[in-house]
Amino acid sequence: MHIDDLETPVAVVDLDKLAANIDKLQGYLDEHHIANRPHIKTHKIPAIAHMQMQAGAVGITCQKIGEAEVMARAGIRDIFLPYNIIGGKKLERLMALAKTINLSVTADSEYTVKGLSEAAHTAGIELPVLIEFDSGGERCGVQTPEQAADLAWFISCQPGLKFGGLMTYPTNDKTDPFVQQVKALLAPKGLQVERVSTGGTRGMWQTHTHSQITEYRAGMYIYGDRNVITSGAMPQEDVAFKVITTVVSRPTADRGIFDGGSKTFSSDLLGLTGHGLVVDYPDAHFYGLSEEHGHVDFSKCAIKPSIGERVTVIPNHCCVVTNLFNQIVGVRGNSVECVWDVAARGLLT
Amino acid sequence: MHIDDLETPVAVVDLDKLAANIDKLQGYLDEHHIANRPHIKTHKIPAIAHMQMQAGAVGITCQKIGEAEVMARAGIRDIFLPYNIIGGKKLERLMALAKTINLSVTADSEYTVKGLSEAAHTAGIELPVLIEFDSGGERCGVQTPEQAADLAWFISCQPGLKFGGLMTYPTNDKTDPFVQQVKALLAPKGLQVERVSTGGTRGMWQTHTHSQITEYRAGMYIYGDRNVITSGAMPQEDVAFKVITTVVSRPTADRGIFDGGSKTFSSDLLGLTGHGLVVDYPDAHFYGLSEEHGHVDFSKCAIKPSIGERVTVIPNHCCVVTNLFNQIVGVRGNSVECVWDVAARGLLT
Repeated sequence: MHIDDLETPVAVVDLDKLAANIDKLQGYLDEHHIANRPHIKTHKIPAIAHMQMQAGAVGITCQKIGEAEVMARAGIRDIFLPYNIIGGKKLERLMALAKTINLSVTADSEYTVKGLSEAAHTAGIELPVLIEFDSGGERCGVQTPEQAADLAWFISCQPGLKFGGLMTYPTNDKTDPFVQQVKALLAPKGLQVERVSTGGTRGMWQTHTHSQITEYRAGMYIYGDRNVITSGAMPQEDVAFKVITTVVSRPTADRGIFDGGSKTFSSDLLGLTGHGLVVDYPDAHFYGLSEEHGHVDFSKCAIKPSIGERVTVIPNHCCVVTNLFNQIVGVRGNSVECVWDVAARGLLT
Repeated sequence: MHIDDLETPVAVVDLDKLAANIDKLQGYLDEHHIANRPHIKTHKIPAIAHMQMQAGAVGITCQKIGEAEVMARAGIRDIFLPYNIIGGKKLERLMALAKTINLSVTADSEYTVKGLSEAAHTAGIELPVLIEFDSGGERCGVQTPEQAADLAWFISCQPGLKFGGLMTYPTNDKTDPFVQQVKALLAPKGLQVERVSTGGTRGMWQTHTHSQITEYRAGMYIYGDRNVITSGAMPQEDVAFKVITTVVSRPTADRGIFDGGSKTFSSDLLGLTGHGLVVDYPDAHFYGLSEEHGHVDFSKCAIKPSIGERVTVIPNHCCVVTNLFNQIVGVRGNSVECVWDVAARGLLT
């Protein structure tokens, strides 16, 4: 099928660029002896996870148990779930998963650790638990090296658990000193920090400048988006993920309306102005979103699109856009080569 | 099952409030002899569409053909699709649908009308086409009554089509004068404007103050959200739709982290500050979103939640939140009564 025969709006992935992006980061991390553990939140597609594993990833990262369950069923055997897993049913599912694959998780509180310990002990397994620390993201995570060291010791004393190392996001100047301080605090107790996992596509090419990192989790690097381009981590020509829309209305001389809105592109701005980069009309301003309409100002474009014209957009944030589609279409040049179900989407628990 | 046994994040609908909201708008529109044609974009669930029909709706409104196909398969026999349907495959699907149910659509250009005419004529049907006009929403729609009258005449001359009336969103002071001017322009040609369809939950209780409206399309009125509360159209106690989250981290004295982020709540702000109303902690500020984490400032709350506590949130915009869930749970009091697939979600074409 020709790409022009796809009904719009449609999310397409350039398979050659996808493969090149996977290889490029793997090559970089291999060169610096850093384990690659890509985050599948971006694609949620088992076939792409297998491409990442075949390229050399040590395993994958998932954010929810439901995602990990899908990936495990599809044959991925090493999964990191950097999330505080809380609640009886979730812990039951987690332990069922831990019996079938190499699974590791994170915690940032004694509350989470106690729940994990009880469930792991009951299940008769030893679960590696990494400690999440806050390197400035102000999300989860212990706040100080002392808290991290105390929690590491606590984990090491709990039945069913094993202290697995440290994890944070984002990676920045605070990362190395924090890790070094935790190591210094734990050394007298004989506890090693064997694994230090950080992540982020925007800073991926600086990973080797942080001496303490042993493992890297990037997600968006496979696709790219307007946010990644703006960060300087990927040139526009390497972006593999795009949304093709159709102009369904030209109500005024300057205004054009796409057949995709907030239910296609999401409302994520990530600090950018506008809702995407209109590839065919780089001077267009994609200024507004209804749920199923995109509002675009073409006033600065010398030539403006006609009704019925297909226009390609690089979204602001690929992760939340793929999450809105049931399927993603793989293309090579102008030919459709495959259609992938976004199998792990909508699995919020 | 008790509501507390649901894994979080979970989207729940209070079935009593849902029924009351459906009845309340139906009663109001009945009283004023305005046809009720609810927009299913909010729920995308056939069972709720049937509740709306049983309450007295003349039909439903869908925004995409895929949604209409799901609803038609579920037995809904009258669907309005207020969208410029463009492209060969979509027109084929549209005509297949039009052969099985009462279907009407909109257009705002000769381009769209020509495509509809060719497809309808080939299919051997007569399709009602309403004209979308721009009442200030600055989305699609013809700009002037003269353009509307010209397009109405154009539609009436095309094989396979029938001029079906006028449609706009939002409803405001421009609506009545625009319709009256179109009527005056069309009267000499013998064309009637039999149907005038407008919509919007925020302004729904003012519908009767617009003399020209014959049909109303509201979507969010069944659920309600923070945006609808703020508009004054619904008191908080009538809101039927909520998201239950769990506090998975309390990294600092004031910060709490929910187990739902932009892939649960969307990033829609709709002019509001923050990402939702934290029902149990009304002084909390839900200030940030990661993809799977909600960032909340509890500094203004005298009592703050503990890790593991379940907290209920009224989202900013219910339509885009239901669109992120595969299933919605119907509850009565604290009991789970049903689980509905969001059957028409993700059908973007």
